[in-house]
Amino acid sequence: MTDELQKILADVAAVDPSWRQRAEARQAQLTKPPGSLGRLEEIAGRMCAIQQTLAPRSRRRRVVIFAADHGVAREENVSAYPPEVTRQMVLNFCGGGAAINAIAGAAGAEIDVADIGIAGQRIGEAQRGAARFYDVRVRKGTNNMTLGAAMNEVEMFSALRVGVEFARGAADEEVALVGLGEMGIGNTTAASAVTAALTGLSPSVVTGRGTGADDQTFACKIHAIERALAANAPDPSNPLDVLHKVGGLEIAGLCGLCLGAAAQRIAIVADGFIATAGAALAVRLCPAVADYLFAAHLSVEPGHAALLELINQKPLLDLNLRLGEGTGAALAMNLIGAALDAFNHMSTFEQAGVSDGLDAARHTAGEAV
Amino acid sequence: MTDELQKILADVAAVDPSWRQRAEARQAQLTKPPGSLGRLEEIAGRMCAIQQTLAPRSRRRRVVIFAADHGVAREENVSAYPPEVTRQMVLNFCGGGAAINAIAGAAGAEIDVADIGIAGQRIGEAQRGAARFYDVRVRKGTNNMTLGAAMNEVEMFSALRVGVEFARGAADEEVALVGLGEMGIGNTTAASAVTAALTGLSPSVVTGRGTGADDQTFACKIHAIERALAANAPDPSNPLDVLHKVGGLEIAGLCGLCLGAAAQRIAIVADGFIATAGAALAVRLCPAVADYLFAAHLSVEPGHAALLELINQKPLLDLNLRLGEGTGAALAMNLIGAALDAFNHMSTFEQAGVSDGLDAARHTAGEAV
Repeated sequence: MTDELQKILADVAAVDPSWRQRAEARQAQLTKPPGSLGRLEEIAGRMCAIQQTLAPRSRRRRVVIFAADHGVAREENVSAYPPEVTRQMVLNFCGGGAAINAIAGAAGAEIDVADIGIAGQRIGEAQRGAARFYDVRVRKGTNNMTLGAAMNEVEMFSALRVGVEFARGAADEEVALVGLGEMGIGNTTAASAVTAALTGLSPSVVTGRGTGADDQTFACKIHAIERALAANAPDPSNPLDVLHKVGGLEIAGLCGLCLGAAAQRIAIVADGFIATAGAALAVRLCPAVADYLFAAHLSVEPGHAALLELINQKPLLDLNLRLGEGTGAALAMNLIGAALDAFNHMSTFEQAGVSDGLDAARHTAGEAV
Repeated sequence: MTDELQKILADVAAVDPSWRQRAEARQAQLTKPPGSLGRLEEIAGRMCAIQQTLAPRSRRRRVVIFAADHGVAREENVSAYPPEVTRQMVLNFCGGGAAINAIAGAAGAEIDVADIGIAGQRIGEAQRGAARFYDVRVRKGTNNMTLGAAMNEVEMFSALRVGVEFARGAADEEVALVGLGEMGIGNTTAASAVTAALTGLSPSVVTGRGTGADDQTFACKIHAIERALAANAPDPSNPLDVLHKVGGLEIAGLCGLCLGAAAQRIAIVADGFIATAGAALAVRLCPAVADYLFAAHLSVEPGHAALLELINQKPLLDLNLRLGEGTGAALAMNLIGAALDAFNHMSTFEQAGVSDGLDAARHTAGEAV
């Protein structure tokens, strides 16, 4: 591990649980039955602890999309779409025509699009439109992991550093919620390999059809993951070994983003399977990252549930999504925003002149005596 | 049944399923793997069918809160809060300090607050603040249903008509999403009685602790429901018989609102247990209402799942909410909005110059020959 990464890990502090208690004390005064806002109350308490305040904020909101290609997608039959689609979709993000553009817009979130490892031609200035686009390419896609490591350790550290830099930028610009977005044809193959390596579960259990692989492609995909694990023998107790051998450049970027965001006390909103692979690696490197992490939704990809269980996270939404791009993260930002609006703006029983029920309880108790 | 209500029921038309097919054809062209937006695609398709367009809209958004009191809450020990809280909370809605004010605000929804049957003093002009408040009181709370019908049939039809009128107002003001809100101390008791009557399930199975009843109050609540069902013998095959005997004025208002909204082709966003009781009665009166109904969330109240199953609805959210007021409905409006933003604003594969994967599929098929 590099000294720089060691320092980031050392900067991640577990949240002080007393903030959650203080948040709960405020919740008890608000004009609603105790606990009646369910998980919205849990969200508010966690945000208080993350931001160390009883006036937590959910804005500014940002989804960071790391885009990268995968050698396994170029050379093995693992996806319903050709590898060129990674770059084409990045242009679509820049043009505003993708699902994440619409859904982030509905959530009041901005989008950062970053080429951390696309294989094709670089995105030119003229192609970026009004997008917040960043050329931070570490290399042109990964190697075919069925034949050896997807990337070397130096490349992995570079990609992790990119993620950490995006977290610093988010902190500088007072981002309150950072969503994990990604684009990369073949990246459910990498995420499945990471999941199998971390959990010890069989590739056949944690692998799904991604963007919609047919039976033949699906069989190839599982076989490719089995071969990648056999060729690399990633050490399940060493997240960095898993990451560079069977991960991806966007997964490394997201892992670094999680580490950096937690170090900056920024709440992280994971998305689906690939984003959670990056987050799970970060939590394995540094368990306190979990204090800053919200699991946005449960993906259709079977490996996602396994990863969420591994890092003990319960998703907020379950909408049969399997798109990625950060779409589920953006949807969950609305829930977090609503939770904080209730926490920050509701009246107390005293302010509103509403009986808190304790009078009635005392009355009843009095009668019972 | 009154002639007026007959006419409303006749005005509710099942949606034309061909709209959903047309919506699916558009979804297939959008730059995402087919089906990858999961339930968001289902939402968009249903909204197309409801609004008879391929450019569905989710605004204007409105939550209608019907507030009413319950004789059973005044005279039996069924709630953790005293009945006065109904009126106090309505003043809180007017003052902007309740959860629904914050959460509707976060969803870009306005709130209509209506006294359809509060027992206490009427809300004066000066107390309404800037709220959209309506005095449409049918009577001062219901009778104690353990002793006989909660209201007579004339009163029930009046409350239904109030709901229908709010739907007409929503249509006049081009509301696209109407959320079902309610406030009424004791109304989980009424909703549980309605649920037991409609489903045939035991009160002990469908009754929960509402706002947080302690063991003694909870036992009283179940016993009150058992006595109400014994005293009234509501006919499970006749929703109007169930409604006036063991329902509530706000439940009748919400039932009328559902009927009227469906007749006006406005999408209905149900909230939790009480709102769904009103919606389920409407669906039982007129099955085509279901075509216009979205189940926002799954409440902690055990009867809610039973009602949703009865009318074959799958909730969008599961956040352990048990507050009511329309809070879950407002949260779900954000999801519906995001679904429509994606449907309306995404580029097609052709527009974005993204490979739809079919080229690759054809290429592979060609190679196989």
